Amino acid sequence: MDLTATTAQLAGTASDLVRLLPAKVYDPVLAGVLITADRGGLLLTGTDRERGVRLRCPAVTHTDGQVLVPAKPLAETLRALDSEQVRLVVEGSRLAIRVPGARFALPLLEVDLHPGVAEPPARVGEVPGREFARLLATVASVASRDDALPMLTGVRLRNLPGGVLGMVATDRYRMAVAELPWAAEAEVDAMVPAAVLVEAAKQAAGADRVSLHVDSDRAGLVWQDSAITTSLLASTLPDEAKVIPSAVETTVELEADALAGAVRRVGLYTEGRQVVQLDIGEGEIRVHGADPQAGEAEERVKAEVTGGRMTPAYQVRYLSDALKAFAGDRVRIGVPSGLRGTLFSSLDDRLRYLVVPIRPQAR
Amino acid sequence: MDLTATTAQLAGTASDLVRLLPAKVYDPVLAGVLITADRGGLLLTGTDRERGVRLRCPAVTHTDGQVLVPAKPLAETLRALDSEQVRLVVEGSRLAIRVPGARFALPLLEVDLHPGVAEPPARVGEVPGREFARLLATVASVASRDDALPMLTGVRLRNLPGGVLGMVATDRYRMAVAELPWAAEAEVDAMVPAAVLVEAAKQAAGADRVSLHVDSDRAGLVWQDSAITTSLLASTLPDEAKVIPSAVETTVELEADALAGAVRRVGLYTEGRQVVQLDIGEGEIRVHGADPQAGEAEERVKAEVTGGRMTPAYQVRYLSDALKAFAGDRVRIGVPSGLRGTLFSSLDDRLRYLVVPIRPQAR
Repeated sequence: MDLTATTAQLAGTASDLVRLLPAKVYDPVLAGVLITADRGGLLLTGTDRERGVRLRCPAVTHTDGQVLVPAKPLAETLRALDSEQVRLVVEGSRLAIRVPGARFALPLLEVDLHPGVAEPPARVGEVPGREFARLLATVASVASRDDALPMLTGVRLRNLPGGVLGMVATDRYRMAVAELPWAAEAEVDAMVPAAVLVEAAKQAAGADRVSLHVDSDRAGLVWQDSAITTSLLASTLPDEAKVIPSAVETTVELEADALAGAVRRVGLYTEGRQVVQLDIGEGEIRVHGADPQAGEAEERVKAEVTGGRMTPAYQVRYLSDALKAFAGDRVRIGVPSGLRGTLFSSLDDRLRYLVVPIRPQAR
Repeated sequence: MDLTATTAQLAGTASDLVRLLPAKVYDPVLAGVLITADRGGLLLTGTDRERGVRLRCPAVTHTDGQVLVPAKPLAETLRALDSEQVRLVVEGSRLAIRVPGARFALPLLEVDLHPGVAEPPARVGEVPGREFARLLATVASVASRDDALPMLTGVRLRNLPGGVLGMVATDRYRMAVAELPWAAEAEVDAMVPAAVLVEAAKQAAGADRVSLHVDSDRAGLVWQDSAITTSLLASTLPDEAKVIPSAVETTVELEADALAGAVRRVGLYTEGRQVVQLDIGEGEIRVHGADPQAGEAEERVKAEVTGGRMTPAYQVRYLSDALKAFAGDRVRIGVPSGLRGTLFSSLDDRLRYLVVPIRPQAR
C-alpha cells in the first residue's frame, strides 16, 4: 500500500472514526483501523462488534492495499502534523507515515483477525443532515448518561402520523420531543444509543441527504460512501402523548436567552437546594432565589403572559438546560396546574421539552 | 455605603482579589472582602493572614462607607451581570447589588472581626511590570507544586552584580534563571511563594513601574494605589552558578518552535518511558522515539551545530516545557559531557533554563 492524502482531511476522518469507537477496547484488533486504498481513494473502517464505522477519504493511491493499524496513534500522529500532504506507505512490518523530514512508523496488525464491518440494515427514509443533527443533539441531551440504567440512554426514532420522524428521549425528570418532516419508506420504531447517534449525525451533518437505515437489531446513517451503524437498545420509551400535558393553566412567551441569563445569575443565590422560583405575573416573570448563607436575589424578565398568576419552582440545572435548547429564539412555556411537567415549546411546535417542577419549600 | 461602578472593572477587580486568596478558608471572615468607598473611589481588601491584597477600582461614591461581604459570591455575581453599570448599596443587613430589573443581596459580615491588611514592607526597587511578569512566569513554571516539599515552591529574588534582579526556581530536575536590569535601592535575597507572586505580577503587569517591597518576613508588589503582599518561605536555593555548567561540549542554535513541534510528534511514540533522544549531528538534530507497542518515529530539524556529535535523551515533558519558555524565538542549547544538565538559553542570556537529561536505555 502506498498513497498520498491531504493531511487535514485524513486527520479529520481518522479522528471521526476514533470518536465513534469506545475509548477502551481490550482486544487490540478492535482498537485497530482497517485502511483500504484503491483507485477510489481511501476507506477507513472500524468496529467494536456493537458499532460499525466506514468513512471515505479522498487520496491518491500509488499502490493498492489493505492494512490494519492501531486507530488512536494513527489519528494522533496525523493531527500533530504540520505538512499539508502526508504519505502512508507499507515498509516491512510497519505502516510509515511520512512527511518531509519525518517518519512515523506504526506496527501492522494482522488484517485476517479483523471481523470486518457489517453492511447497514435496510433503508427506511432520508433526512436533511444539518437539521437532523441539530434536533437530535437537543433531544439526546436529556437522555440518561447512566450506563447502569441503559433503558434511558437512547433516543427513540419512529414514524409519527402526518409524515413526521419523531425523536424522543427522557431521563424521567425531563423529556424532549422533536419532529422532523420526512417521507418514510417503511415503518420505524427503534431505540438507538444516544451518544453514538449524536456523533454519527454530527459527522453526517455536512450532507444534504442522509439515509436512515433500521431493522429490528441495528440502526445506521449512510451518506455518500460513508456509513455508521450501531446495535439497538432492548427497551422503549413511554408514549410521549401520555406524558406531555394536554392542557395548561398559564402560557408565557419570551426570549429564551433573557430568561436563561436571569436564571444563571439568580442561580448563584441558591446554594443548598439549587432551586429557583418563577413568579409569573402580569407582563413579566420574576425569577427568585434565596439561601440563608448566600443571601437572596431576584430579577424581572419581560414576557407575554396568558392565564393566571403561578409560582412554579425548578432545579436551576434543569431549567437552564431546557432554555438552552431554545437559545437565540423565543420560547413558549406552558405551566399546568399542580406538579405536572412544564412544557417548553418552539413557536412552530417542532421541538417540545418537558421539565418536572419541584415542590417549593415552605417559607 | 452607596456607589456606582463600571460592571466590567469592578468584576475584574473582585475576581483578581478572589484569585489571590486560597480557595478554601475555614474562617468566614477571611473569605470576606472589605469594601471601602470614599471620594477616591473604591478599595477592595482581603487577607488570609499569609497574604494581603489591596486593589483599587474607580467608582462614583454617593455615600461613604465600609462593609465586609463574602468575596467569592460578590465576584461571581458581578461577573454574571450584563449591564454596563452596577450599584452597590447597603440595605439593612444586606449589601444589595443592583442593576435595572434585578437585585442581588449578600449578607453583611461584621467589619470589626476582620484583621485588616498590613502595610507592605520597605521598598527595595522598581521593575517594569510587563517584562517582570513575563520572565517571572517562565521561571516560576519550574518551581515545585508539591506543598509537602515547600522549600522548592518558591522563586528566589535577589540582587546580582551588575545592576540585575535575579529570579531563580528549581524542582531539582529543572532550574530556570532570569535576569532583569534594575536599579536596586537595597539588598534583596528572598524566597517568595511562586504561585502568589506570579498572580500578583500578572495583575500588576499593566503598570509601567511596579515597586518591589521586601523585608525579612514578607515581600510585596505595589503599583498605583494597589498592593499585594505575602509571607516568605523559610528556605533558599543553591547558588545557580554552582549548578549551571560552565563549559559545554556541543552548542546548538535553532528555532525553539521547530524543535518543540518535532518533540511533540515524536513524543507520541514513547509510550512507556516518555523519553526522546536527540541525535545532534552536522547541521541538524534528529529527534528519535521508539516503543515496542507504539512503533517508532524520527524527525529532522535544521540547526547550527558547534562541537562534536552527541545523543542526549530527555523526558518529553521536561524538554517540551523548556522549549516553551523560548516560544517564538531562537534558543541556544549547550550540552555538556556526561549526564550533567543541558542548558537552554535565550540569545541575550537573560533567560537560562537547565534540564537534567536521562540515561538512554541500552538498545
